[in-house]
Amino acid sequence: MIRSELGRSDADHVYVRGFDLAQDLMGHLDLGGMAFLEIVGRRPEPGEAIVFNAMLVALVEHGITPSVIAARVTAYGAPESLQGAVAAGLLGLGSTFVGTIEGSAHMLDAAYGTSNAPIATEAELDAMADAIVADFRARRAPIPGLGHPIHREADPRTTRLFALAQAHGFDGRYVALMRAVARRAAVAYGKPLPLNATGAIGALACELGIPAQVARGLGVIARSVGLVGHLLEESRAPISRDLWVYAESEAERSRP
Amino acid sequence: MIRSELGRSDADHVYVRGFDLAQDLMGHLDLGGMAFLEIVGRRPEPGEAIVFNAMLVALVEHGITPSVIAARVTAYGAPESLQGAVAAGLLGLGSTFVGTIEGSAHMLDAAYGTSNAPIATEAELDAMADAIVADFRARRAPIPGLGHPIHREADPRTTRLFALAQAHGFDGRYVALMRAVARRAAVAYGKPLPLNATGAIGALACELGIPAQVARGLGVIARSVGLVGHLLEESRAPISRDLWVYAESEAERSRP
Amino acid sequence: MIRSELGRSDADHVYVRGFDLAQDLMGHLDLGGMAFLEIVGRRPEPGEAIVFNAMLVALVEHGITPSVIAARVTAYGAPESLQGAVAAGLLGLGSTFVGTIEGSAHMLDAAYGTSNAPIATEAELDAMADAIVADFRARRAPIPGLGHPIHREADPRTTRLFALAQAHGFDGRYVALMRAVARRAAVAYGKPLPLNATGAIGALACELGIPAQVARGLGVIARSVGLVGHLLEESRAPISRDLWVYAESEAERSRP
Amino acid sequence: MIRSELGRSDADHVYVRGFDLAQDLMGHLDLGGMAFLEIVGRRPEPGEAIVFNAMLVALVEHGITPSVIAARVTAYGAPESLQGAVAAGLLGLGSTFVGTIEGSAHMLDAAYGTSNAPIATEAELDAMADAIVADFRARRAPIPGLGHPIHREADPRTTRLFALAQAHGFDGRYVALMRAVARRAAVAYGKPLPLNATGAIGALACELGIPAQVARGLGVIARSVGLVGHLLEESRAPISRDLWVYAESEAERSRP
Repeated sequence: MIRSELGRSDADHVYVRGFDLAQDLMGHLDLGGMAFLEIVGRRPEPGEAIVFNAMLVALVEHGITPSVIAARVTAYGAPESLQGAVAAGLLGLGSTFVGTIEGSAHMLDAAYGTSNAPIATEAELDAMADAIVADFRARRAPIPGLGHPIHREADPRTTRLFALAQAHGFDGRYVALMRAVARRAAVAYGKPLPLNATGAIGALACELGIPAQVARGLGVIARSVGLVGHLLEESRAPISRDLWVYAESEAERSRP
Repeated sequence: MIRSELGRSDADHVYVRGFDLAQDLMGHLDLGGMAFLEIVGRRPEPGEAIVFNAMLVALVEHGITPSVIAARVTAYGAPESLQGAVAAGLLGLGSTFVGTIEGSAHMLDAAYGTSNAPIATEAELDAMADAIVADFRARRAPIPGLGHPIHREADPRTTRLFALAQAHGFDGRYVALMRAVARRAAVAYGKPLPLNATGAIGALACELGIPAQVARGLGVIARSVGLVGHLLEESRAPISRDLWVYAESEAERSRP
Repeated sequence: MIRSELGRSDADHVYVRGFDLAQDLMGHLDLGGMAFLEIVGRRPEPGEAIVFNAMLVALVEHGITPSVIAARVTAYGAPESLQGAVAAGLLGLGSTFVGTIEGSAHMLDAAYGTSNAPIATEAELDAMADAIVADFRARRAPIPGLGHPIHREADPRTTRLFALAQAHGFDGRYVALMRAVARRAAVAYGKPLPLNATGAIGALACELGIPAQVARGLGVIARSVGLVGHLLEESRAPISRDLWVYAESEAERSRP
Repeated sequence: MIRSELGRSDADHVYVRGFDLAQDLMGHLDLGGMAFLEIVGRRPEPGEAIVFNAMLVALVEHGITPSVIAARVTAYGAPESLQGAVAAGLLGLGSTFVGTIEGSAHMLDAAYGTSNAPIATEAELDAMADAIVADFRARRAPIPGLGHPIHREADPRTTRLFALAQAHGFDGRYVALMRAVARRAAVAYGKPLPLNATGAIGALACELGIPAQVARGLGVIARSVGLVGHLLEESRAPISRDLWVYAESEAERSRP
């Protein structure tokens, strides 16, 4: 059956999840709130709106990443198709980068299962965390949400996100477990493994009731904002041609 | 030269356009405000934030559009790649649909050229509009931002956007000219040609100083939000298989 | 280090894997042979060229699939960007459809491991196949390469591919094991599970020495050919608008 | 009406343009021939097959281009999604690069209009070419199919393509006019403007009866082959991380 509860329209109205788009949403809700409505199915409470927007804002921009490179060189070849360049940039948001939001949300979800238990004691959290760490080590898989090539001690976005979560009452059991995983993983691996922004956002997605299977979507939404910014800059101060020349000349230089 | 003024980071900070992301932006700016910062280069004033967010909110959701169909059937084939399904949905945001935001912004920009003239008299606006309409008619090209298959009398999003623009002081010369174009086109073509949401947003992009070449990007950002919502719904109440079966059976039925 | 052995060029030549593109390849190699050169690193022998081209030809066209729908509705929104419409169509070639080429190739590779054993006895093949079937059943995962919604008894492409493979000496141990898996799975599940084209192609990819991690790429290459065909037809006899109208009217009809 | 003449299937057959895929096409047609069938609607004659395959083979590989960079950095972020990385690479095949195939085909088509005139005299060709060159100069638009950053004197692929075309009887009026355009443009601009591969292929597409609106599709098909080759190499000898590090360190170095 073809059915959707998201949107419909008639000659004089557009309805989104039962709200009149023009009268009830436009002018009342910011874009982050609208994303919350689309995903969670209701408008956010004020505290939710602040934390949820901060999660999205955290992911918008991180300099010239591989995703940004893909978008910019695509615009070099097809400057007439902004949507194509943004799409190219989004296509790299897989398992290596923002897929870890989804990975950490799934990891935390699985740990609690169908239980509704509140935050456990420190010792219980550590035991849950140790089990998670041991499982990933046994599979030689990286723990999603830990580690960062630049923010080696602490990811400043994580610190801020958890402070906002605390201020608005969202530092619940998922945040506690994610913190415990980072703490115990550092012990197990014998090196600092900072909880990065995607891990923090995965935990907060769980706190806000955002399904793990679209947690990656938060990164997709946020990065689409950042990519439009980079494509505007590329149209004014292009870097694609220099990247191309560098790659070709390096490839030529390294020929046997 | 490879250079960017958007973002950079060191071990303890991420900077976006000179702001400390964690301290100055997260918790202070919503996602729409962050998009404004990326594109315009400064944080929005309160009135700008309301109008700009409303422009984005207006474009998030419009039911099961071709873009939504592309995203949903893509998820049917590759459910493991949310980013791929969103990208597929964005790729249709070309000349037929949201490209008209860019088209109307370019049209209005070109009409004023480098002049900084304030709003002209009604008669002068009509003369400018008549010249625009005549030009498009001569080229047999549709005027961007006019007409809608469902909202045949008036697009409710346009009405709301212009009310918000007026309330916050953004109903300037671009809005005035866009209105005049719709009015004069209706006369020239002898039928109602309502100013649709993309035309209104194109005019407001000009008012807010958003470059025409990224005006289409507003639609790309907003639709990425809506597509994530549809992909979550598709994972719970799929429509792709029914669409496929319908298409194949119709194709079989219509064979000569 | 940035290095590539695929292509390079100077003022008067383009070289591909050491061959002079213009003199050695153009006019001598067909597109399938060129794909073989890119992937395997040498030009195909005559028999390899026939089997490899047949594998690609088998995947070009299968009517109005979800991938075709994605491409066509994308072209409706952005008719100016053929590459975007093809990209949208390719994005659905994930785990549900052609990803099964990769899945079956991995499955067969894993079964033989690093052994170079020739074809085993029927009994040994059945034992290997039973182990594979039991493993997928235990994980409640579908066996890649088996089953087809339309070709319920036998996939005609598989029959033809294996006949060509036999005629040219490529019906080795991977084909034998894949056949055994289909046979034993039918017994285990108590229903016919025909070996479909992607399973046959996964097995033949192993026979030809094509790495499993790009086996999915054969489908990507072949479908790009089919999608261009469908986009040309869409520009002449469009179906996108009818699909859109159907989806919207069905969604309206099924509202509670 | 939803209707397609490309493909359909029943339990025992797949039909493509009326042919039985398994019996009539697989094993008889190479991938280039299958592309010809999809686009032109009939199987190619032997000479057509050679020229058409050469056109495709010419476009498969040209080293580490922007399109290849986009595909490779996308695979770095989403290694699990080969189809996404290929799609990212294809999205840059716009107006700057292979869009010129379409551009030159349109240019030549428009010059002859609906006339069926055979090849004109040298003087008539020069006059047609001069009109084309003057038109592009007046619009300050680059002439599609002319010029190459590396092959500054002559593109070796063009030389070979036209030799094959001559050998098989396809050096007709479109090839003649394209050559004349290159010759007259060099005079008008006072510098060598070699006829590049996309210009030659645009002319040959016209000779073979391939509609200009899908001429760009030939590049899309061919590049999908090359991209799969590069993605296999990237999985073995990655360059993406080095490109990222270079871009970020250059951006840091050039900060004011």
